[in-house]
Amino acid sequence: MTLVTCDMSSSLDGYVTGPNDSRENPFGDGARMLHDWLSDAATDDDRAILQEMLDGVGALVMGRTSFDKNEGDGGWGAGGPVGDIPCFVITHNEPTASYPPVFTFVADGVVSAIEQAKHVAGDKFVTLFGATVMQQALPLGLVDEIRVHVIPVLLGGGTPLFATLDSAITLERTQVLATPAATHLGFRVVR
Amino acid sequence: MTLVTCDMSSSLDGYVTGPNDSRENPFGDGARMLHDWLSDAATDDDRAILQEMLDGVGALVMGRTSFDKNEGDGGWGAGGPVGDIPCFVITHNEPTASYPPVFTFVADGVVSAIEQAKHVAGDKFVTLFGATVMQQALPLGLVDEIRVHVIPVLLGGGTPLFATLDSAITLERTQVLATPAATHLGFRVVR
Repeated sequence: MTLVTCDMSSSLDGYVTGPNDSRENPFGDGARMLHDWLSDAATDDDRAILQEMLDGVGALVMGRTSFDKNEGDGGWGAGGPVGDIPCFVITHNEPTASYPPVFTFVADGVVSAIEQAKHVAGDKFVTLFGATVMQQALPLGLVDEIRVHVIPVLLGGGTPLFATLDSAITLERTQVLATPAATHLGFRVVR
Repeated sequence: MTLVTCDMSSSLDGYVTGPNDSRENPFGDGARMLHDWLSDAATDDDRAILQEMLDGVGALVMGRTSFDKNEGDGGWGAGGPVGDIPCFVITHNEPTASYPPVFTFVADGVVSAIEQAKHVAGDKFVTLFGATVMQQALPLGLVDEIRVHVIPVLLGGGTPLFATLDSAITLERTQVLATPAATHLGFRVVR
């Protein structure tokens, strides 16, 4: 069975970007440190967590906003976010410009995008990229694991990691790894 | 120097109660498990964390809502929340009823209440009780430590642990202790 997961770096108060994030200001105001564990401040443990993510991903699903913010000279260069791993981009309007073949645009919503991603991911993970697509998939019962990298900062505003829910969702913690830059927590969604 | 701290049990999505909390429904809908680590599901590690809290507290500061929800047969019985530890209750209107002498009502706000609490706490902690008073004290630079007991559940609504802030606040993680019922995280506020 292909599992659906997400990996989110979040402030302790639950923001995945600071205020005013954009292609020009990708982390939002004051939030660059959310990603320190992936670069400057990384320890061997941080790097092991990252490598485990990269080794595990079989396909990605993201929203159009994440795509527009990051593609090309927004950060990904000529490829996708993770080498040649297939990326399914949920969009209302398929772009007319041409993009690297790693990207597939999906016009019929998150359920279809995750289904297509599972088809190519095999026994690896389908990884949801960005808070919005995770927030859409979670109440539909389509998320199996949530990994939150808690960064020691209170941003006080920005893009929230979680949205409101109609009913509570029970989790089971599966991982804790503390480094100076992050507290890496893994949770399994209990059905 | 007397340090000001808070201990909050929070869902992974940052709620300290579920929706519709009241004196009759003190945890809010579906949120009883937020406090499992203090009772049924407690392990020796959970009990050690609780004992450390109880041993460390020299005075408490809380808002009137927390007081009204918990005093007397709301849970505290004939005393205060922690034995005979002094409690400063911030209120707009001092009650006319009489309450146990452990309670002092403070009509001139959170700064005054914390100052009075520090005066009696000596080299122990002033502990803020409830999210509201912590949210008031934090942007004023009056909080030294934040301890969050992260419970493996997404409540999807209720009373948020953190409020919005005008600017980011950097933290340093000082504690991580994982038990089945909670992930106990401690942070120092970096000035």
